[in-house]
Parts: sequence; C-alpha cells; structure tokens
Amino acid sequence: MIDLRSDTVTRPTAAMRQAAFEAEVGDDVYGEDPNVNALEEEAAAVLGKEAALFVTSGTQGNQLAALVHARPGQEVILEQDAHIYLYEGGAISALAGVQPRTIAGKRGAMAAEDVDMAIRAEDIHFPETGLIFVENTHNKAGGAVVSVADMKAVFDVAQANGIPVHLDGARLFNAAVSAGVTVADFAKYTDSVQVCLSKGLGAPVGSIIAGSEAFISQARKWRKRLGGGMRQAGVIAAPARIALKEHVDRLEDDHRLARELAKAIGQYEGLSVLNHVETNIVMMDVRNSGLTHQDWIRGLKERGVLTGGMGPGILRFVTHLDVSEEDIRKAVLPAIGDLLSR
Amino acid sequence: MIDLRSDTVTRPTAAMRQAAFEAEVGDDVYGEDPNVNALEEEAAAVLGKEAALFVTSGTQGNQLAALVHARPGQEVILEQDAHIYLYEGGAISALAGVQPRTIAGKRGAMAAEDVDMAIRAEDIHFPETGLIFVENTHNKAGGAVVSVADMKAVFDVAQANGIPVHLDGARLFNAAVSAGVTVADFAKYTDSVQVCLSKGLGAPVGSIIAGSEAFISQARKWRKRLGGGMRQAGVIAAPARIALKEHVDRLEDDHRLARELAKAIGQYEGLSVLNHVETNIVMMDVRNSGLTHQDWIRGLKERGVLTGGMGPGILRFVTHLDVSEEDIRKAVLPAIGDLLSR
Amino acid sequence: MIDLRSDTVTRPTAAMRQAAFEAEVGDDVYGEDPNVNALEEEAAAVLGKEAALFVTSGTQGNQLAALVHARPGQEVILEQDAHIYLYEGGAISALAGVQPRTIAGKRGAMAAEDVDMAIRAEDIHFPETGLIFVENTHNKAGGAVVSVADMKAVFDVAQANGIPVHLDGARLFNAAVSAGVTVADFAKYTDSVQVCLSKGLGAPVGSIIAGSEAFISQARKWRKRLGGGMRQAGVIAAPARIALKEHVDRLEDDHRLARELAKAIGQYEGLSVLNHVETNIVMMDVRNSGLTHQDWIRGLKERGVLTGGMGPGILRFVTHLDVSEEDIRKAVLPAIGDLLSR
Amino acid sequence: MIDLRSDTVTRPTAAMRQAAFEAEVGDDVYGEDPNVNALEEEAAAVLGKEAALFVTSGTQGNQLAALVHARPGQEVILEQDAHIYLYEGGAISALAGVQPRTIAGKRGAMAAEDVDMAIRAEDIHFPETGLIFVENTHNKAGGAVVSVADMKAVFDVAQANGIPVHLDGARLFNAAVSAGVTVADFAKYTDSVQVCLSKGLGAPVGSIIAGSEAFISQARKWRKRLGGGMRQAGVIAAPARIALKEHVDRLEDDHRLARELAKAIGQYEGLSVLNHVETNIVMMDVRNSGLTHQDWIRGLKERGVLTGGMGPGILRFVTHLDVSEEDIRKAVLPAIGDLLSR
Repeated sequence: MIDLRSDTVTRPTAAMRQAAFEAEVGDDVYGEDPNVNALEEEAAAVLGKEAALFVTSGTQGNQLAALVHARPGQEVILEQDAHIYLYEGGAISALAGVQPRTIAGKRGAMAAEDVDMAIRAEDIHFPETGLIFVENTHNKAGGAVVSVADMKAVFDVAQANGIPVHLDGARLFNAAVSAGVTVADFAKYTDSVQVCLSKGLGAPVGSIIAGSEAFISQARKWRKRLGGGMRQAGVIAAPARIALKEHVDRLEDDHRLARELAKAIGQYEGLSVLNHVETNIVMMDVRNSGLTHQDWIRGLKERGVLTGGMGPGILRFVTHLDVSEEDIRKAVLPAIGDLLSR
Repeated sequence: MIDLRSDTVTRPTAAMRQAAFEAEVGDDVYGEDPNVNALEEEAAAVLGKEAALFVTSGTQGNQLAALVHARPGQEVILEQDAHIYLYEGGAISALAGVQPRTIAGKRGAMAAEDVDMAIRAEDIHFPETGLIFVENTHNKAGGAVVSVADMKAVFDVAQANGIPVHLDGARLFNAAVSAGVTVADFAKYTDSVQVCLSKGLGAPVGSIIAGSEAFISQARKWRKRLGGGMRQAGVIAAPARIALKEHVDRLEDDHRLARELAKAIGQYEGLSVLNHVETNIVMMDVRNSGLTHQDWIRGLKERGVLTGGMGPGILRFVTHLDVSEEDIRKAVLPAIGDLLSR
Repeated sequence: MIDLRSDTVTRPTAAMRQAAFEAEVGDDVYGEDPNVNALEEEAAAVLGKEAALFVTSGTQGNQLAALVHARPGQEVILEQDAHIYLYEGGAISALAGVQPRTIAGKRGAMAAEDVDMAIRAEDIHFPETGLIFVENTHNKAGGAVVSVADMKAVFDVAQANGIPVHLDGARLFNAAVSAGVTVADFAKYTDSVQVCLSKGLGAPVGSIIAGSEAFISQARKWRKRLGGGMRQAGVIAAPARIALKEHVDRLEDDHRLARELAKAIGQYEGLSVLNHVETNIVMMDVRNSGLTHQDWIRGLKERGVLTGGMGPGILRFVTHLDVSEEDIRKAVLPAIGDLLSR
Repeated sequence: MIDLRSDTVTRPTAAMRQAAFEAEVGDDVYGEDPNVNALEEEAAAVLGKEAALFVTSGTQGNQLAALVHARPGQEVILEQDAHIYLYEGGAISALAGVQPRTIAGKRGAMAAEDVDMAIRAEDIHFPETGLIFVENTHNKAGGAVVSVADMKAVFDVAQANGIPVHLDGARLFNAAVSAGVTVADFAKYTDSVQVCLSKGLGAPVGSIIAGSEAFISQARKWRKRLGGGMRQAGVIAAPARIALKEHVDRLEDDHRLARELAKAIGQYEGLSVLNHVETNIVMMDVRNSGLTHQDWIRGLKERGVLTGGMGPGILRFVTHLDVSEEDIRKAVLPAIGDLLSR
C-alpha cells in the first residue's frame, strides 16, 4: 500500500528507533527527562522563542494556546477553513470557552484589513477579541504558504490592538522550506507557535509549542489539566529530536514529488489540480471524471493507493518521507490512469 | 427626544403600571407568583407549546436553549449575522461550550440545503452538530421575516438528523403580524422558541421561552444557575401579561410607520434604504450622503432624534409604540432633511 | 397563612408599589434608567465601594463575582455549608469553571489560619487559589454573624496572598444591625460584596453587587452574557431604593421576634433551638419530639404556618416584615404547642 | 540515587525498550496502530470491560470519565483526599464544569451510607449528582486498599440512584495483588475504570480507561479534543503491553519491601509509620524527630535517597521495580539512621 492520506502516517526511521532504544529517560512531570528537556530547548532555539513545551499533538498545542491566551467569553479570529475550526472537535469553545469568528482568506491567508475589521469594538453586547489564529501552511487551502509579509501584516494589526497571535504551524517547516526562510522568520510575527514533529518530519508522536517563558509556564499547567503530562517521555522525545534536526531539509523532496504528481494529474482529461502546489499537498478535482470522490478513494485503494477526501469532488494527496518518486511513477499514476479509463 | 434606536426603549403604558401596582404576588422561586404562572400559561398557549418560562431577557432565553439542548464540544448552526453570534457577548461558547458554525442567509433566512451541508458527519475530528438556531424576524437583515415555509424546510432537515431547533423570536410577533399568521404557526417548526415582551410589545422587562415540559423543567434549573430566578416577579409579569394580550395587533401600526419612513427616505438624494421593510426596522444607507454614519447619529441627536449604527455607513431606525406618525412627519423627516442640506 | 419559610417571601409595601407606579424609567442596557442609576450609586455609597450593579438575584451576584475574579482551573475557598456551594446549582463550576475547596467554619466563620492552610502552593499538580468567599450572616449556621474581626483576619490572609475576597452578604444588613455596625464596616474587608434587597429589606426583586469600578465594569459585561441585562428596570429599582433607605433599621424587629420565638420554643419539652439566635433565623431541633421534620412541616402547614426543613430533624423559621409579634404569639406558638401535644 | 518519591519514576526495562524498537506501528488516529489496538483489547479483557482506550496519563483518563459521564452543572462525589480533587489542577471543574462534593473516608474508603446522604434530592437549588468517583488504592491514605465489599456497597447505592461510578485505579493492580483478587473483581462495581501502566507496572508512558463500547467511543472523541490523540503510538503501547502482561505479579515484591521498610522505621525512636502498609506506600511521621519534613527530604537527598512530602510532618516512600531489598537495607535505612542521629 502507498499511503498518501496524510503525512501523519510516516513511520519512525531506523535512526529514530535506535534513539528511542538508547534514550536516557527521567520523569518529565518532575522536569527530569533529559531528552524532553533537550528537545524543548532545541525547538525553542529553532523557533526563536524563549521557551518550548513538548505536547502529544498539534491539537493539544493549539488548545493550550487558546486556554492560556484567551478567557471565556472572548472571541478568537481565524480563517474560515482553519484546522482549529473544522477539525479539532469544537474544542476551543468546549475547553477555553471562546467563540470563533471566521474570515475568508485568500489561499489560506487572512488579509490584515479583514482581521482589523473583525476585531470587536468595546460594547456591552460584544465579546472582546482575545486571540488571533493563523495557520501556515494552510491545510484546506492545499498546503498554501502564508507569506512572511502577510504574517507581519496581521501581527502588526494584532499588536496595535493588544491582541496575541498564535500560529498553528503544524506544517510550518514545509512553509519555511518552500519560502526559503526559517521557521523563526515566520514565528517572529507571533506570540506563540505550534509545530508538529509527527507530520513531514516523521517523528512517531508529538508537537511543540513555543512562546515566552510566562506563556510556556502557564501552558505546562494547562497541559497537566488536559492529562498531557507524561512520565518517561524521552522514548518519544529522542526520535522527535532527530526529526527536528535531520528531517527539515528533506521536505524539499516531498514538495518536488507533489509538484510532479500535480503536473501528471493535470495531463489527464477529466482531472485537474485545484491548488497551486507550494508544498506537499495536491488537491485533485474529480468532478469531471465521471466518478465521485468516494469512487476514487475506493478505486485507488483497490489499486494499492490510499487517499482521502477534502469535501465533495475533491481528493487530497500528501507526499512524505515514506513515499518515493518510484511509488508515484510506478504505482500512483498508473492507478489513476487505470481507474480513469474504466 | 424621539427615540428610534430600538423598540427596547418602549416605556410601560399606564395600564401596565396600574397592573403592576395591583399585582398579587408570591415567591416565584417557589412557583407561587400568580401573575408569573398565568403569564407562563398564556404564553405557552399563544406559542403552541407545552410549557413556558419567564426570563429577564431575550439573551437569557437564547442561552438557556443552548445550555439545555446542546452539550459542550458540540457545534451549533446559525446565520452569520445572528444576534446570538454577534450581540450576546460570545456567551454560547462561554456558558454552553458550543462552537458556532455560521451560514450566510438570504434576508436572514438560511437555506435548508445549506443547513443540511453544514451538519457534521460522524468523524473523530468533528464536533457533533447539537443545535440549529433560527432568528425571526432577523434583526441585521432589517427586520426581515423568515417565512413559515423556510422555517419548515430547516426544521425538516433538523428532524431528519435528530437535531433540535431553537427560534430566537425576539421580534416573532412582528413576523407574525407581517406574514398574517400566528406566532404558533412559526413555533410549530421548532423545539423551543424565545419571544421578547419588552420590545415592540412594550413590557418593561422580560422574555418568554417555550417548549416541551421537559425542556422547560431543565431551563428552569439553568435559569437558577444564571441567577435569573426572581422573587415577587409578579410586578413585572403583570404588565408583561398586558403586553402579550393587548399589544400584538398594534404592531401593524409600527410596520406602517416604518414603511412610510422608508418611502420618505428613498426620496432624498444621497440616501437610500437597504432593506425591504417588512416590519418595524429601516436600514438607511448614508454612504452617498457626504456624511459618515457617526455624523448622522450625532447630527440627528442634535435635532432631537436618536438612532443607532448598524455597521459602517448604515443607520437603523426602529419604530415602536412610543413613536407616532406625527413624530415621523414633523420631527424625524425634517431633521433628516435639515442635516442632509448642510 | 403565616409564612416563615424565608424572608424572601416578603411582599412589596404600599410605598414600594407606589414608587414602582410612578417610577421614571429608561433603558438600563443603555445605562439610562434613572432609578437603576440612583440605586446603584446609593448602594455603592452604603457599602463603601466605588461602584455597584443591580442584579436579579443573590445567586447572580455571587456568580458574577466568580466569573470576574477567578479563571477556569482555579480553586475557590468557601465554608462547607456556604449557600454558594450548597444552593446555587453547582453554578460556580459550571459557569466560572472553578473548583470549590471547603473549610469547616465555627458558626459560619472560617478561621483565618484554616484559610491560610487551604491556599495552594505553586505546584504543577495544584489549581491556583483564585478567590475566597465569605458568607455573612451565614444561613446554614442559623443566621450567624461573622464578626468584623473574623472578616478582617480572613481578608488579611487573602491580601498577603494576593487573592480577592467576595462576601455573599445576602443578609449582610441583618449582620450589621445585630453587630451594631454598618454594612460598610464588613464590606471594608472584601474586594466585592453582594447584598439582597428582596430578603429582609422587602424589595420585590433584586440584589446588588459592589466593588471597584473595574470589577463592576466587567461584572456588567458578564451580567449581559447571563441575560441579566434588563430594559425598564426602574419598575423594580424604585421599590428597591425604598428597601435600601427605609427598611434597614426595622430588621431589629425581626431579630427581636426571632429571639422571642426561640425562647418560647426552648420551653417546650421535646424541642430545642440549635442556633444562638443573633438575627432573624431560628433552627428548631425536632429529633426528640416524636415527629419527623416532614411531619412538623405538614402539621404546621395544616395549622396555618409555613416553615421549611434544613436537613434531617431540623426546622427553620425566618422572621421578616410580613410577620408580627401577634402572629408569633397567637398563631405560631399555639400551632407548635398543638402539634406537640398530639 | 535511590528514588522513592513515586512509582512513576520507574524506567522502561530492556524488554520494553526492545519491544518499542521492534514495534510495528500505524496511525492510531485512524485506528491503525496494531500495538495500540492489541493493548486496548488486552486491557479491556483484564479489566472485564467491553472496550478500552489508551491515554497519556491517569489524569487524562479521569478527566475523560468526568467529561463523558457528567454534564456541566452537576455535582460529583469523591473522597476528600482524592487525587482527582487535590492533584489534577481543578480540571474536573475547568473542563467538565462539575462541582466536587467531598466525603471523609476511612482509610480512603467512602461509606456507602455517606455516599447515599451526599446524593442530592431534586430541588431547584441543587445540582444533580452526576458521577461518583472511587480511588483504589487510595494514595493519600497511604496506598490503602478499598475492599471489594466497600466498592460493591457504593456501586449498589449508585445503581439505585441511576448514577455512574468511575474508579480512579491508578494503582488498582496494587490493590488486586494485595487483596488477592483480580482487577476485574474491583472493576465489576464500576461503570468505568482508569489504570496507570506507568506507575508500578513500569511502562514509560500511559494509562488505560475501560468501560462500555458507548463510553469508550465518546471518550475517544473527548481525547481528541484534549489533544490526546497520538499518531504512531505503538512505540509506547508496545512496552505498555509488556507492563500489563508481565509486571503485575511482581508488585508483591514492592509490597513486601514497603512492609519491611515500615517495620524498620517503626523501630527508630522519634519516627513512626502513619499508615497500615497494604501496598507500596509508606507514610513516615517525622513530627517527633526534631526535624521538619523539609529537613528530612533535604537530608535524605544529601544521603542519596529521594523522597517527597505528603503534608506537614509527613514523608512518603514508594517502592517500585527500580528499588531492591538491598537498596532499602544498605542505603535507605542507614540514611534514615544517620540523619536521625545528628
């Protein structure tokens, strides 16, 4: 099976397994796991923040940001197709008690002026705006990169209004590689940032949130409340350190593969690619193919290729370190062609 | 001063004051206030529901609906300019822990197919859809009436999916009078409904929510938690009973006045009316008048007329029982004309 | 019927009804109701605080204190039989997301050293202590007065730890009259205070919370979220002003009546009084009377006297402005004697 | 250093590391990690429940129980020194919105009649009782075992009132080994149960909750909201499987060691043991030793022994798989003796 459903499916490499095997560990609830401590320091440095915290998932990192930055009864601004809004179980309202206010972005990027307009004035009827979320790369927009300039513009508006900005950077490393900048170049225009180590970087489990010392200190307490405090977490932090150190540059391979796949898809009649492929996501439009997206998912699965839907008529392919150029050429494209010709 | 900011500003009539003066009272927390009990029975009958509850405001009624019908972590569907979303302090997320999912309606009415599309499928990433809110008349859409047919269509979708519907009918009596039906004709297509007695009907304080016995029983407990349980509430329930009995038919006067005002406004150069005036709200567009809406609010106030803004460039006028035809002709229109000619 | 269940059952006096009848009103959501504004100023002055807010109930006032002072995940300290803990529907946890930590008081008063011990140290496992509640008079302790000295001692501990204190003073006027001090003498040792106007003071509806300008400003927003914002609230604020101005001194009558009642009860064999009667509450122990407290409630009701239970074997009598010395002598005591002799 | 602070500090064994190294993995958010699936099945079988869920901590498991079983505004009953009440950051109120109602137990066990008395009657002022928590072994009571009979008695009361019971069985395996029964014998008298794999059983990370299929299905959704959904979780599930299969019987060694330690402590003048040692926890009373518990913690640490405080004057020792009889005899006891003789 070639699994293109998501880059979350990446399996730990041999080096990661070896690192886990040998990892010196301690009780992280007491702050004594050396690999967790090292990972948090390394991640803070990479992201250009004072401090960082290892969490079990990107969702946990994003929720912690809402819990620490905002208060119940406040409103948070985010893009209308943001992961936090669509795919986190409504948790920001359930846990942090905040109301999402959505903005339609362009290729995932909210215009700073729209953000400015969405910030609430003081009025007895209005929730206060307590937090602005940015997502980069933007998943539903097909892995689109929100430019550093766009991030700065939103951050400037936020600063002018005294409102914190949290970056859902589950795939921020993809954005950085694509844009030819560092993740810190993006994170500079945020108060806190979350990055996943278990997507393109290939770690088995875990994400990082980073921000000021004060932010991380409060996030650590909230992580405990969510039950995210772990004991000998070094067994997953050790492979995560490898992901962070050694797997960033190779994301370019995933992007190149995605571009190749998109190019090939574009040449089939009845198929097209919806997104400008900047990173590792290809959105294939099947509405003119004579088959539904459910047909496509099923048909490709029968031909050894796993994919997922992204709304009616749309298939999502995600390239990652367990998918090779040969997989695409010798298996994925033939499967597509075969199904199309039925 | 002629106050057209809202129909909430109506003052109790002499008959209402007399009713309050003479009201037999009891302790409503013990269920012993005869006027509250009578009001709740009368309101339930008018709305065609098993039971009703007297609450201090429309916001409280709407929040109780969220608290009883939905659970934290669920999503609620509502129109993108709904009062509950824009003007209730983000309370549905703060109190009930639910995430709003907004739909763009047409003149305040959500299309049933859009509602259907917005209902979440079962998936580990998704909140369950727990409640659908409808607003009628729709305030931000200029007092637009959502037709009985539109309400039925949404209710059918809701029923098919096992999801309750709550109607924010703060101005439902206006809708009924405008459409030539009863409020029960609308309420039929809901699981619960809130109507305000202190807007066009003129009661000093209070709203009603109505639904099944079980719903009201739980709402009564939640009202206590919100601190909405009152003692000798008969002093406000007695005038509210008069509002409910005697002030419904006269809403037609408000509607006629609003139409007249709209017609007159439409004849001024530089001004136009944004909404099709079906009830008691007129939205005046001042963007071509050479003055901002803030200028207009200030200028009209100096000329003895109070109004409010409804977003950039828009003024809202609301007619009600304390505004007469003469007020409009001899004071409001001259003030508009005078300001425009500066 | 002589109703001794609670002082909440008091009916508005003729003067109050007249005040409501004549009350000039405005829309209090816009801050324009003159009676509400006057009441809030007068109450702030009486309580010695910067600002005050009119709310529909004592429960609402207490909940607002939790919502404004504390944050979710914090712990609040209160006496183990506090009204907020036992009788407010668990609302502090449901709305403010705080965990109550209870202390056994002596006659309703928590020892300052116990409060000090209950304050949490900083530890990843611990909620932070966010608020201390005091109740005065203490209902379950039989209307016991918490002395100014005890309040100061708790407040000193709170101040030393940077933790706010809220006083549930539903019957604080009774405490003041009994102790021969002013309510401000108590309120001095708090950050915020709630007093009921609809208990011994006899207003039909309403309570006051008072505190700093900043506190009241935030409480006003939260009151809106709870749906406690009212329109022409002057119809209940006007009688409440009379309650506040004219009904404080007469509480001494209620206290004297309660002492007389207690003395008389103590002379019946098989009955005793559990509490030292300092204010208007008498707790009658019926465990040696051969009848259950349910028997007593039923039996007295058949004899024209309404009372309530306060746990197994205990009856509560509350004196108030609708009960006279003659009612006690000619009706209540004979009814007790008659029932006891069966 | 000999670390007796907690059994959470246990390090993964060589076999566990090997299992992690070799673990076949998949994406557990998709339900595709074979080791997670196997662990959940095995744990459900051991606990005698329909289904189980792997979570990152005991706290997370307990919180999920509150979130699934109870609703905001309800009250939950627990022992006054329960871990959930004292050491989980106030999370049940912050996340599930429930109010804890505490009962004083005897050696950790709540009397069924006390539970019965604490269940709320129906009344407009009362929260409904929504859940009963039991803790076994009880940490603060010194690892005391709550007998199967006591658990049955509480469960019978719960059943009679239609209230679910959740067992915080962080150290339930210790209880079972001590009592000579199985964990299923205890879990039989619950609706859901949480057991830690990372305490005495020695897994690096993780706990299990088990219950009905419906309960686990909802808990899985709430785990996602808390951010507890992990990707290739097999790397920690594989060693956890070994903990569950191979490390239960050896808990008897820890208990024997604890008894020996307690016996030895009892022979020092100035020291005594507070608890009847049934499992792996020894509570040493140092109040007559001339040193504070802080002195003891510091002094023992200087002598190579780590311990923790359990309130003023009390030291807690926890035995576990990384502590040997020799450690106790040749290091711990000499350190105690040496410190005492200063």
